This record gives sequence, structure tokens and C-alpha cells, in this order.
Amino acid sequence: MKTIGLDFGTESVRGVLVDVETGQEVSTTVAEYEHGVIQGKYHDPDDYLTAMWSVLDRLGSADAIGVDATSCSVLPCKADGTPLSRLTRDPNALVNIWKNHDAQPQADRINQVAAERNEKWLPRYGKISSEWFFPKVWHTLEEAPEVYRQADRFIEKGDWIVWQLTGRETRNACAAGYKAMWHKQDGFPSSDFFAALDPGLTDVVDAKLSRDILPAGSPAGTWQDSVVAVATVDAHAAVLAAGITHPGVMLLVMGTSICHLVLSDSEKHVDGMCGAVEDGILPGFFGYESGQTAVGDIFGWFTREFDLPHQGSSGPSGLVALDWWNGSRELQNADLSGLIVGLTLDTKPDEVYRALVEATAFGTRRIIEAHERAGVEIRELRASGGLPENNPFVMQVFADVTGRTIQVARSGQASAVGSAMLAAMAAGASPDGMGGVREEAYIPSAERHKEYENTYRIYNELHDRFSDGLLMAELKGRGTAS
Amino acid sequence: MKTIGLDFGTESVRGVLVDVETGQEVSTTVAEYEHGVIQGKYHDPDDYLTAMWSVLDRLGSADAIGVDATSCSVLPCKADGTPLSRLTRDPNALVNIWKNHDAQPQADRINQVAAERNEKWLPRYGKISSEWFFPKVWHTLEEAPEVYRQADRFIEKGDWIVWQLTGRETRNACAAGYKAMWHKQDGFPSSDFFAALDPGLTDVVDAKLSRDILPAGSPAGTWQDSVVAVATVDAHAAVLAAGITHPGVMLLVMGTSICHLVLSDSEKHVDGMCGAVEDGILPGFFGYESGQTAVGDIFGWFTREFDLPHQGSSGPSGLVALDWWNGSRELQNADLSGLIVGLTLDTKPDEVYRALVEATAFGTRRIIEAHERAGVEIRELRASGGLPENNPFVMQVFADVTGRTIQVARSGQASAVGSAMLAAMAAGASPDGMGGVREEAYIPSAERHKEYENTYRIYNELHDRFSDGLLMAELKGRGTAS
Repeated sequence: MKTIGLDFGTESVRGVLVDVETGQEVSTTVAEYEHGVIQGKYHDPDDYLTAMWSVLDRLGSADAIGVDATSCSVLPCKADGTPLSRLTRDPNALVNIWKNHDAQPQADRINQVAAERNEKWLPRYGKISSEWFFPKVWHTLEEAPEVYRQADRFIEKGDWIVWQLTGRETRNACAAGYKAMWHKQDGFPSSDFFAALDPGLTDVVDAKLSRDILPAGSPAGTWQDSVVAVATVDAHAAVLAAGITHPGVMLLVMGTSICHLVLSDSEKHVDGMCGAVEDGILPGFFGYESGQTAVGDIFGWFTREFDLPHQGSSGPSGLVALDWWNGSRELQNADLSGLIVGLTLDTKPDEVYRALVEATAFGTRRIIEAHERAGVEIRELRASGGLPENNPFVMQVFADVTGRTIQVARSGQASAVGSAMLAAMAAGASPDGMGGVREEAYIPSAERHKEYENTYRIYNELHDRFSDGLLMAELKGRGTAS
Repeated sequence: MKTIGLDFGTESVRGVLVDVETGQEVSTTVAEYEHGVIQGKYHDPDDYLTAMWSVLDRLGSADAIGVDATSCSVLPCKADGTPLSRLTRDPNALVNIWKNHDAQPQADRINQVAAERNEKWLPRYGKISSEWFFPKVWHTLEEAPEVYRQADRFIEKGDWIVWQLTGRETRNACAAGYKAMWHKQDGFPSSDFFAALDPGLTDVVDAKLSRDILPAGSPAGTWQDSVVAVATVDAHAAVLAAGITHPGVMLLVMGTSICHLVLSDSEKHVDGMCGAVEDGILPGFFGYESGQTAVGDIFGWFTREFDLPHQGSSGPSGLVALDWWNGSRELQNADLSGLIVGLTLDTKPDEVYRALVEATAFGTRRIIEAHERAGVEIRELRASGGLPENNPFVMQVFADVTGRTIQVARSGQASAVGSAMLAAMAAGASPDGMGGVREEAYIPSAERHKEYENTYRIYNELHDRFSDGLLMAELKGRGTAS
């Protein structure tokens, strides 16, 4: 039996054909989106289809197909799935992709109103991000009311693609739970809440969405002779590919940023978490997501701007940095910025590089400790993404700082393989042979871990000195420091 | 009438022959010390003589000679001026030069004992530096007691050179006042104080020094047919060359570090000052000295380590730095280190450069404001040294940040010219035509000065958050942060 995983990224779709019994990746192919990212924040939904037909053609037939996609990426469409972008030239009819922050004013008001009303779903997220579903939908209502009026549906990119394959509208619990404030027992926020935001939003759920939410890995329908699974979010698909099927093991999806994912038997409140969703990653478990906004992005900034190699000093740097180059997801504050302390006339560039890597590892250690304080145990770490493929220095620092062994997902394209695994589940097969880790792992040095106690304490002290964000906001010309 | 100024630096002696009436620099020459800096902290005193005879030979005859030198640089010698280095191979018999910090333990104990005894001279300095006279002499007593015993005299480098020229031991008020805790009315610290440090030091002043202290510019004697002036400290000589003869005008001697010098009619306590000495710069005035430990050194570190040009962004950087790459003289704390905040994925290297320059300018602005709070007015700034010669970008930032016009000393070798002016005074001539400033000046932009209010407030806020030094000391492995 063979299944296909389709991983819809920001620039392209990657497809992989996997043998379900052996886990062998039989073939892989990538197709770029014809129009790429439009104005830095939109996709043309027809690009997904053109690229997908090309990928499916190249991969050949399979028993089942799974789909994952970047999230939250939202598009408006008609009741039959026709994207509004085919009917109007308004850019708001295109796919509003994850990194579009135009809805910040709407997110701010959602957070304010939800806090005033003590909405019980708010603590599950800490704060609602401008990248998420309802801020984006509300932004469309305010900025392009005609597009909002014409839309019969607002839907996640991955769900829309599954709809195009199967002819059936489904919505996945992962994207709904993490990005659209949906809860398995409580559903979406109430009409009262939406009315308090804007009377025009009162019926948004019933008028423009669907309350029919399915767990990832459920069958959604068929395309030609293949079963098609309900979609999922890209990072979450990687959890399966890394062989994680039970609590206690955290996956770090490590690239330009880090997404931290872990399963738990129960619902807990973890400080700084992005969301905890029942069935959000694997049916039967609560899936916890946290994140760091910039990781590889910081190393890339340093080596690019200063024309240096990716090279960290072998010894201690005498420096400590705060890894807030792109704000902090833990503190839900985009106005925070990076800081380095300890610079002397003897400081070398490779020491700065090391300090930047250590800072991101300290950020992950804070996230691990926040889970453990909340009673969500983290015994082991696994990793997928660009950094474990390309940067062993970074991986060893993460192992040393966290004091935990890091195993690396066997596949270099973990999200696509995870989707192929969900496809197998949707077709009634066991995906157990498809995921897993490599033999080599990054083992923490007990000595280095002990040496990091001092620097980590200083990192936390710096974190506390600047976490109110006042000084950094003033640097960005927003607000007044004491 | 012509006079010679001899400026004894760290690597070489520079000589200039100046026409007293016109101020024209008739000829200039430099001779390097044969053995350079020995072990990073010593000079061979005979190198001064070899280099000086060569310089004097090349410059030809003059009516008078003035001498300035780096300070505090101390050597032991016999009662006739013979340096002990000719009698023993112990390196402690060499000249212990200004940047030798071996006497830090002795400086620490001096500060502790002086504070316990409420010594009235302590507030004039804030803290005694390991670079200064008595810490170095005490270090010799503890590390090389035989050298201490054999020494009939410990003397400043500049005073020893004047002694070699004239055959007469003199000591200048500038070095004695700034570096040897001497006061015009109160003299040196008491024997009781020295006894409290170490019984072996009880009689140090009468046994190894002289209480006969003369103002700079007094005649010390003659060499051949030339009058020789009492020596002075190099930075202080530059005050005259910049045409400063009255209160209200601060000289910035701007190179790897900055020395800030200003005259006043009265003795005040300025926070963070290095010293206030009557007759220390010009007879009849109190001379105030402050400093920043690293300025050009920071810009040099950045451009050297990251292989970048000396180029600052034209617009605001969005960054703020603390200029503590080599500690802080204001806070008298060598364990402080540099800090940058505000870094984002869009930060460019020329913005970092600008932030480093701004940080040093903010440091100078704090020093100016400390003087003004104490009642020592600073109306104008003048500058000498390497930065005004080579880096107009830095000079304009200093003008904009301080909101003050900066005029530049006419001579590119201001210390040597200042010594030639002291020589003229010693010979009874007026040096008025010899000093002065260039026509072009750095005028502050009112708009830029206003824009800097916000960044300067943030600089001060950061300064206050880190001035206790605990976190930075812990980074250097000394002490524990909260």
C-alpha cells in the first residue's frame, strides 16, 4: 500500500509517495506556486491547484492522499467552493496567508473585548494573534465589505484544497482549534461575543463557516480512486513523522522559527502557550503548541548582514542575548527586540553567533519548563525541519542547554510524510512503520549543561528586566518607558 | 622666539618646534622607543632618553623645552636619578606604565581603607584607580620588596625626564594631583593613612617622594641654553593648545578613549569625575578631569572584528547601546560590559555602528550634565586627538547629542604644542598666539538634538538598569546577580 502526502508551504507544494509498510519514501517532487507570494501577504488559490495537479501527475497513483498546509491562511469562496478570487480583482479575495499581519488592529480589539467579557476560551491561547482566523475575517469585513458580503464561506487553505479534491467541504480540528478559537466541547465563541465585536459579525460562524469539525486523519472523501484525509497544519503533521504517538515527547519543528508540539492526556494551562487543542494533533490527545518567532532567522540575519559563516565559538562566549529579534510569542509582544550584553573589546564574531544560538535554546528551555510547571511532562525532545538537517552546532547547543537528548525525525520532509501517514489512517491502515527517528542523536554533555546554569539564570534575569516591553516599545516609538 | 614641546606617548616621543609669536609649527619629528612596551606593561626608561636625544638633535636649538607624558607611569630610581632598571633585572624596576592594572588588589584595599577612615580626599576622586601612583608603589613593595628597598625615589615618567634634562628633581602638580592624591592645601594623605594600609608604607612620602610640587609651566632648570619647564600630563597639555584659558569650555581629548578636561574657579564635587586639582591644568584654576574608557576602541573593535568600514547610517538606528566595552570610568567599574538593544531582523551593520557612536556621545553628555549639576558650567566643547582628525561622522553625532558646537584644536598634535606653550611660559613669554581652534566647527542640528531626547532617555534608563554591575559581573564569573 502506498500513500501520498502533500505539504503546501509558502512558496511551493511538496509531494511524497510513501510505502506504508516499509516507510520508504518512493518518490518526492516539488512544484512552485506560479505567482508566488503576492504583495508579501497573499496567494492565488488557483496556484495551489495548478501545482497540485502537476505533483499528483508526477507521483502517480496511490491508495490515499493526505494534505497539510501553512496556517492560518484563509480564503473566501462561494457555497460550491469557487474562490472569490475568480470573481473579483480585490486582493482581499485572495488567500490571506499566515504571515500577513494586517489584522493586528482587529486582533487587539478581540483581545480587549474577550478580556473584558472574561471569555473562557481566552486562557487557552493567552492572546489571539493577528495571524489567526477571526482577526483576518473581521479585517476583510472592515476593509473589503463587498468581499465579505459575497463570500458564502471563509475557509482554511488546507480544508479548501481537500474540498477541491473531494467535492466535499470539511474542516480540520487542528486549524480550527489552534487558529479559530474552536473547542471540541464548547465549539466556537458565542454569537454574543461576535456581536460585541461588531454587529456585522454576529452570525459569522453559521453564515460563513461550518460547525462540522473533523479530526485530522479522518476520511474526507475520495479523489479518483484514492481516499483523501481531512487536512492538518504543517507543523502538526510532522509530529507523526517523528514517531511521536504518546505524551512526554516534544517535537521541535526547527527552521526560521520554532514550533513546539507535545501531546498530553489532559488539558492544562501552560504559560506562554499558543494553544491546547483536543484532537488537535492526534485523536485522543490534547495537543499543545508553543513557539519562538525567530530562530534560524536570527542566525541567518547575523551571517547575512555581517557576511560571516555559520560558526559558533567552541568555548563560552561571555555574552548573553535575548532572542527577541522578531518579538516574543511567549510574551505575545511583537514590539520586543533583540538584546546582547557582555560585549568587550575582545569579543569575537563566532562568540556572538554562539550567544545567539544559546539565546534561542534558552527560549526553548523556558517553554519546556513552563510545560513542566503546568504538569505537562517533557522527557525527550525530537526535531524536524531545516536546522536539524543543516546545523549540528545548533542542535548540540539545544541538547546541552535543555539537558535532553534530541532525536531527529528520519525524514527530511517530515510534514509531507506526516500527511502520508494521516492518509494511511484515513484509508484504515496503520501508519506505525512510516514515522520514526534516525539512529544518531544529540546527547547533552552533563558538564556543559551544568555550565549553562549560570548563563541561563542571567538570561532569565534579563528576560524579567525587559519583559514588560516598555523600554523596547519606546525604542520603536510606541509608548513611554519609565 | 622658538620653543620645543616633547610629548612622551606609549610607543614613541613626538617633538615639535613652534614659533612662539606666530604659533607656526616649524618642524615635527617622532622617535619610537627601542624596546616598545615590554610585556604589555613596562617601559625601559633609557628608551626615553635615547629617543629624546634623537628628537632634540633633529629639531635643533630652541629657547625653551616643555615635556608632557602619559600618566600615571611610575619608575623607581636612586637619589641622583639613576633608574633602578640599570642596577637590577627585576621587571618591577622598569617603568610601570599607565595601562598596567596589576595593582588592582592594592587599589581595592586603598579604597576600602580610605572609605572606612572617611579620608577627606576620597570624594575628590570617587575611587582610586589601579592605574595610579600609590597602588603601583604599594604593589612594588608587596611584589618586589627588594626593588622598593633599593629605591630612593618613585617618580612620574615626565618628572624623571625633566630631571634627566635639568639635573634637578621636580614634581608637577598635574600628575601629583590627579594620580597621587595630592592636594595644594592638604598635601598627600597622612602617614596614619599609609600606616593603616601597611606599616612599611608609613613614611612613603618622605622616604620615597617629595613634597615639593610645582605647577606645570614653572621653570624647572635648563638644558644646554634652553629653559626646561616642569612636566605635565599629556591630555592636560592639550587644553592649552586648544586655546582654553578660562572656565566654561570643556576639552574632549578623543581617541581610543576620551579624557574630558575643564577649568573652574572653584572646587566642586562632580559625580563620576576622575579628579579635581587646583593648578592641575592651568595655574589659578581648578582643573576637572573625567573620562570614558573606550570610545574609538569600540568603533575599532566593530570595524576590525566584523571587517566593516567606519560608516554609520544616516538615519536613526532604532538601537541603543551602553558604551561599557571596557568598563565604565564614570561608575569606576571595570567589570561592566557592552550592551545593545533594539536588534531586529532588519538591523543593518551601519545602524549598529551609529548606535555605538551615539552611545559614546551619550556617555559624554552624562559627564557634561554631571558637571552642570555640580555647578561647573560647560558652554562650549573643543576637541583634539585622533577622532576629530579622522572621523567627522563621530564629531557630528557628538555635536547633535550634546547640543553644543564643537571646535577642533588647530594643531593635530595638541599635547606637544601644549608642552611648547608651557615652555614659553617657563621662559617668561606669552603663549597666547600658539593655541587655538580651526575655523570649521561641528554645529549641532537642533532637529537632531531634539530627536535624541528619546534615545538619550532610554540610554539613561538602561544605564540605571545595569549600573549596579551585578548581572555583568556574574557574566564575567564574579559575583551573583539577583
